[in-house]
Amino acid sequence: MIYPDNRWKHAWDGFILFAVTFAAIEVPLRLVFGYTAKGWIFVADSLLAAIFLVDVVLQFYTVQSEQGRLIVDRSEVRRRYMKSWFVPDFLAALPFDLIFLLAGPLGLPALLAQRISRLVRMVRVLRLFHLAGILRTIQRQSTLHPGLLRMSILAYWILMAAHWVSCGWLAIVGSTGDPLLDYLNALYWCLTTIATVGYGDITPDRTNAVQLIYTMAVMVLGVGVYGYLIGNIATMIANLDVARAHHQEKMEQVTAFMRYRNIPPRLQSRIRNYYNYLWESRRGYDELSVITDLPDSLKADVVIHLNMEILEKVPIFRGSSNEFIRELVVELRPVVYTPGDYVFRRGELGERMYFVSKGRVEILTVDDIEIKATLGEGDFFGEMALLFHQPRTASARAAEYCDLYYLDRSTFDRVLRRYPEFKKKVVAFAEERS
Amino acid sequence: MIYPDNRWKHAWDGFILFAVTFAAIEVPLRLVFGYTAKGWIFVADSLLAAIFLVDVVLQFYTVQSEQGRLIVDRSEVRRRYMKSWFVPDFLAALPFDLIFLLAGPLGLPALLAQRISRLVRMVRVLRLFHLAGILRTIQRQSTLHPGLLRMSILAYWILMAAHWVSCGWLAIVGSTGDPLLDYLNALYWCLTTIATVGYGDITPDRTNAVQLIYTMAVMVLGVGVYGYLIGNIATMIANLDVARAHHQEKMEQVTAFMRYRNIPPRLQSRIRNYYNYLWESRRGYDELSVITDLPDSLKADVVIHLNMEILEKVPIFRGSSNEFIRELVVELRPVVYTPGDYVFRRGELGERMYFVSKGRVEILTVDDIEIKATLGEGDFFGEMALLFHQPRTASARAAEYCDLYYLDRSTFDRVLRRYPEFKKKVVAFAEERS
Amino acid sequence: MIYPDNRWKHAWDGFILFAVTFAAIEVPLRLVFGYTAKGWIFVADSLLAAIFLVDVVLQFYTVQSEQGRLIVDRSEVRRRYMKSWFVPDFLAALPFDLIFLLAGPLGLPALLAQRISRLVRMVRVLRLFHLAGILRTIQRQSTLHPGLLRMSILAYWILMAAHWVSCGWLAIVGSTGDPLLDYLNALYWCLTTIATVGYGDITPDRTNAVQLIYTMAVMVLGVGVYGYLIGNIATMIANLDVARAHHQEKMEQVTAFMRYRNIPPRLQSRIRNYYNYLWESRRGYDELSVITDLPDSLKADVVIHLNMEILEKVPIFRGSSNEFIRELVVELRPVVYTPGDYVFRRGELGERMYFVSKGRVEILTVDDIEIKATLGEGDFFGEMALLFHQPRTASARAAEYCDLYYLDRSTFDRVLRRYPEFKKKVVAFAEERS
Amino acid sequence: MIYPDNRWKHAWDGFILFAVTFAAIEVPLRLVFGYTAKGWIFVADSLLAAIFLVDVVLQFYTVQSEQGRLIVDRSEVRRRYMKSWFVPDFLAALPFDLIFLLAGPLGLPALLAQRISRLVRMVRVLRLFHLAGILRTIQRQSTLHPGLLRMSILAYWILMAAHWVSCGWLAIVGSTGDPLLDYLNALYWCLTTIATVGYGDITPDRTNAVQLIYTMAVMVLGVGVYGYLIGNIATMIANLDVARAHHQEKMEQVTAFMRYRNIPPRLQSRIRNYYNYLWESRRGYDELSVITDLPDSLKADVVIHLNMEILEKVPIFRGSSNEFIRELVVELRPVVYTPGDYVFRRGELGERMYFVSKGRVEILTVDDIEIKATLGEGDFFGEMALLFHQPRTASARAAEYCDLYYLDRSTFDRVLRRYPEFKKKVVAFAEERS
Repeated sequence: MIYPDNRWKHAWDGFILFAVTFAAIEVPLRLVFGYTAKGWIFVADSLLAAIFLVDVVLQFYTVQSEQGRLIVDRSEVRRRYMKSWFVPDFLAALPFDLIFLLAGPLGLPALLAQRISRLVRMVRVLRLFHLAGILRTIQRQSTLHPGLLRMSILAYWILMAAHWVSCGWLAIVGSTGDPLLDYLNALYWCLTTIATVGYGDITPDRTNAVQLIYTMAVMVLGVGVYGYLIGNIATMIANLDVARAHHQEKMEQVTAFMRYRNIPPRLQSRIRNYYNYLWESRRGYDELSVITDLPDSLKADVVIHLNMEILEKVPIFRGSSNEFIRELVVELRPVVYTPGDYVFRRGELGERMYFVSKGRVEILTVDDIEIKATLGEGDFFGEMALLFHQPRTASARAAEYCDLYYLDRSTFDRVLRRYPEFKKKVVAFAEERS
Repeated sequence: MIYPDNRWKHAWDGFILFAVTFAAIEVPLRLVFGYTAKGWIFVADSLLAAIFLVDVVLQFYTVQSEQGRLIVDRSEVRRRYMKSWFVPDFLAALPFDLIFLLAGPLGLPALLAQRISRLVRMVRVLRLFHLAGILRTIQRQSTLHPGLLRMSILAYWILMAAHWVSCGWLAIVGSTGDPLLDYLNALYWCLTTIATVGYGDITPDRTNAVQLIYTMAVMVLGVGVYGYLIGNIATMIANLDVARAHHQEKMEQVTAFMRYRNIPPRLQSRIRNYYNYLWESRRGYDELSVITDLPDSLKADVVIHLNMEILEKVPIFRGSSNEFIRELVVELRPVVYTPGDYVFRRGELGERMYFVSKGRVEILTVDDIEIKATLGEGDFFGEMALLFHQPRTASARAAEYCDLYYLDRSTFDRVLRRYPEFKKKVVAFAEERS
Repeated sequence: MIYPDNRWKHAWDGFILFAVTFAAIEVPLRLVFGYTAKGWIFVADSLLAAIFLVDVVLQFYTVQSEQGRLIVDRSEVRRRYMKSWFVPDFLAALPFDLIFLLAGPLGLPALLAQRISRLVRMVRVLRLFHLAGILRTIQRQSTLHPGLLRMSILAYWILMAAHWVSCGWLAIVGSTGDPLLDYLNALYWCLTTIATVGYGDITPDRTNAVQLIYTMAVMVLGVGVYGYLIGNIATMIANLDVARAHHQEKMEQVTAFMRYRNIPPRLQSRIRNYYNYLWESRRGYDELSVITDLPDSLKADVVIHLNMEILEKVPIFRGSSNEFIRELVVELRPVVYTPGDYVFRRGELGERMYFVSKGRVEILTVDDIEIKATLGEGDFFGEMALLFHQPRTASARAAEYCDLYYLDRSTFDRVLRRYPEFKKKVVAFAEERS
Repeated sequence: MIYPDNRWKHAWDGFILFAVTFAAIEVPLRLVFGYTAKGWIFVADSLLAAIFLVDVVLQFYTVQSEQGRLIVDRSEVRRRYMKSWFVPDFLAALPFDLIFLLAGPLGLPALLAQRISRLVRMVRVLRLFHLAGILRTIQRQSTLHPGLLRMSILAYWILMAAHWVSCGWLAIVGSTGDPLLDYLNALYWCLTTIATVGYGDITPDRTNAVQLIYTMAVMVLGVGVYGYLIGNIATMIANLDVARAHHQEKMEQVTAFMRYRNIPPRLQSRIRNYYNYLWESRRGYDELSVITDLPDSLKADVVIHLNMEILEKVPIFRGSSNEFIRELVVELRPVVYTPGDYVFRRGELGERMYFVSKGRVEILTVDDIEIKATLGEGDFFGEMALLFHQPRTASARAAEYCDLYYLDRSTFDRVLRRYPEFKKKVVAFAEERS
């Protein structure tokens, strides 16, 4: 059986995408221009039929996913496919040109045979619906930016629709002899109308009801599509960089407030710098809000990925069971200090242990003047606060912008209660260190 | 009396809708083209009058709803109808063609009579306001998608407006002889203008002030309508599948965050799978947020509908009073576990009882290696935690994506306090099981 | 001094609005068509000057409001006016036609005098800025729907802009002889361009740089204005009935959820009915959320207006000090019960007292079968719960949709603590009733 | 090294902005019209080259900022610049006209040399990307309204794009002899198309595939750009005054509610006045929500800027350590009273101390009739509540709209615990005052 995450399957899906697109473009063109399939067009048509046939066969061996469960049972897969897309897929796989080449001599007048052939080939376009599924799969598994992907898919459908509308226009107004120019003119008319530019150099014959009605239909649909586009493009472009838009909006609000309340320029500049730091260091993402919806196990994996190397350095935790670290890590809370801020002061009662994720923190001597130590990325401090309820023995101050994580005592205690075997180790460690 | 949820009433409303639409289309056409009502048009007009007349009579027997209360008193219904829509409804029900056919010989010149007839028939259009009420009723009671319905109603009004604007244009520029082509051209001009395409093949006579002013009015109104449409279509289409839009937005945010923070591909894939599971299994709906606004009794009915079969299997609850189960059911909270997650571990203090709504949960033996039992849909576990404050005697682990509901002890106790008679049963059950 | 809420002032403001609008329309027209002020135009111009002059004088006696404080001091008012709008207002008040009529014989060539007159009169348009203030005042004090008002003001500015753009176009392309048709054509060109219809029957002379540049400027500005309009019209129309939009959105979400989870039709209908009741009885307004931002005193006044008659009927409260009732009333919380819901059951511990605002509540006898009493609008029940911690002595059930308010014991106690003198009364009342 | 906040650097950046814009406009024009660089154009070109060359040199000495850290190390700066923009910047700095003037005699045919020169000069346009960085810096450091700035930058890019599209059109349709008119016509065509006006007086030759395709591309891109614009202009204009929009929306909701519930006109007017006061006194800003995201130290600085003068007057705080005041100030909460509201009443238990920021508060005598004292801006009252749990000894009432800040006892206690040395002072102060 072929699994959904099979690499060859992905490649084949891409190939099918290409083949269906070709069919969807070629079928209406042949209906309008009525050319006979000769040479490379004949070959392409037969090839297409072969590709679609192979795909029908492959579908019988392809595992489907439903509500997060995989359907791997072959007979179940077959039963489902037979009931859903088998018939149209099989019809789309028939080599019409070949059939009518053979069928021709059987007695049907050549012209009639050709006309039937052209119409029947319309079933190939049905595969476009099948395609919607493939595009959805791509959308789901792609690591590309989802907004970009959605824009591409939307553009794909709109260009396809423009192609069909143009072919319809050609069928109504008739051809003048030069197929390429005719087609370009039809497409030009279609785009001029849908984009509501309406130069008016190509307009329907006002004594021809069919042309008038077709034009009106295109205009009405065009307004709908256009409205949808206008409404979506801004959203999509905005979503290409949601974070930046968010950051800018925040800046605008803060700036307006500061201007109105006459905050002095130096303070304004410090506030702007703080927000710029947040932006540059984390694109303004509040990691808490992103991971908040995840179930605990995934949340832990994400936070661990972001912080594991820090935790592993902490002596109390080194050698603890993986499970214990996982539970602790989920409880870490990020906090930012700007240059010169005190993380805590000597004499305060401590409740939190800090881990330095970025920046430098200075530990000060008794009188807060001399620097006793400077801690950097991966260091931690204040760990005694997790074990004993005692005042801080020194002050800690941020030397530059600092990203810290903290763990507070009540959380630590709560987690510890579930791991009694670890409690002894902690107490031993604390006695030794004190 | 006819009640609002009477099936025949709904059918009749649909019929009236159709009749009013016909009148609203035919009246301006006759005003513009000035044809005489002969043959089937005469019949249709008389039929319309008959239908409207029957509706006037029916209104006297139709129960109205006001602020959730039904007005069933016949005299009250009559009083209200006489004061509101009776006069215009009655005028609209007059068979004008018939009256003027009879009135003709009374001495009025035929031409004048016809002209008056045409103008007077405009009152029929007043029924469109009445129609608005019917559409609102349909909107309220229909089980169709509300967004789709609103789009249809909007389309209905816009097409109606386009028809009237076209007839107005015809009245101003005059007819050329072929009514159908004339009308199509007028409609074509109207749509070209409102959709802001403006080919310019039909433009007002620039020396004719009336045509210029009419065109300007249509453009100004058109911009308004168009702006409203553009602003709404996107919203409507989005609302056709709010859930999907929500899901996609969430995915875009999460993906952007993961890319920025360099989450490893395998973890990215797990997170994507989790969200896809949520989407496929429940369209991303958080059932809590939907039912949160409902009063307790409705909330209970909804949750019971979703979970009754599960609760009925639980031995402690079997045979309990309906009221008791209803109060418990409202307190069930859904929770999802991904494959491999521990629901709880042996030795932990338990506070929650779990019900399996979907997926498989494995109960593990002492050393967490062997599987003692596998629970599936409708099973429950951890029920002892509701009665006794004791450590879990085994671990429970999700074997695949699992939708569980849980009930925590404090809630259970709170509900139990109101049902003292049930408390004894629970204690007896617990003693027997232990 | 004239105060801002003076009725005559409002009327005068309306009159000024009219006069300024007239000036803003007439000034560019005279510049373009270059007609001489004769007959009624001369009179109108002189009248306008007189009106503006009176307004300048009135400004010296008009109290201004700033940051919620009124500036009533005359010298302060004068000082502020002299520094802000006095000069342009005074210039706009000069009777230019009269001055140039008199100045004519003084030696200036008549033609030059007229030209200067026309240009100088442009200062009158400056009053439009003054107008913005008046419009803002109207907006603030009007009891009309703010959205409707904003739409009207926007329409006013856009029509004004269209008028000026048209006059500018006329000035560039020159007149053909018929002023009315010329003006209509210019306005028609302007609207065709701004609404992006662009028929193309009036286009700039492509060898005339000025016309090309003017057209381009109008198009660029038009896109801006148009974009602003499109973006606002939908919002405005939506805001014309925010409540309905909200209600519909909610209904769409709920309906989608119910369809997806296969809620049975009868339950769906009950839920829809509940929301329809909320809509019909209170337009979906959650009164709590609207009044939540108000300071306590205003909040109390609003709630009292909504509920005073109910509270006054309650024996415990009758005759209490106004202040006491005001504090209690703010704490009332609304709650809705659907037909058949139990408000409370016999034997439960009561914590809340209920007031019936709408609907009927049935008090049941011991075995919950017979109805002991039916309470309606203005009745109250469960008042003993505020005084004693004892079980309910009967059950209460909603007979139809009921709007109740409740007051819970802890709130009552909190308020009571501030009014010790009232406490005795309550205890006495309770003893007597028990 | 040149630091990012160097004033000369800013000036130079502005100069570069101007030079690049000139290059971006001139390069495509020369490509299309093919004029030879003579006279002032030759000088301008050489000057441009010189400016760009100086800028390349300056880049080696310019400190870069990355994630809030400055890169001041010269070799690091050089290494980064060499790897990123050095090559294109250097190419853009070549004096092409000069080179080809000298290179001309070297044997290349003059015509060929010129053509190459024109094409090669395209690299100058690459500096536009560099420009994006400058614009971003301006955006970040400017104290201008961010929304206004973004609109300007957007307008800049769109005009640039329109210029290029117009030059492209000229290159395709060819010139007619008058460069200025030709260019204006091309720009006119471009704007007519992008703004979707589409007069149709300039349209592509329908037998010319290149012109058709170019037009279609411009239309498709135009729709995108236009959609983006339409979607953004409203947002931007709204953001120009977010606060006002917010205020208006609030007013609309409140007005709708009041109209629906029949609030009496006088009460409606009071509520409107309250919101107008909020608007006029603070543009509706809730300062708490703006500063809530800031780290504690910045938050303190902002609040201190807003309130320091008030706090310094309070005797208990006078002379306290700066740190202590900073911690207190962050905890101040704003509150508004409308005229006649009681802040507190005699006999109530007090928990809060109040600071008057604006307005007048009356302290009343025992029987709440006479006014004992009137407090104004900078005064404070109720300070005993912070120290002792005792009833208020007098009532306080707002005489007009009052902006107060309050500090409650639990907060005061919490802060005090960290400053034991200050506690004694407070107790001493309290004993002395009582």
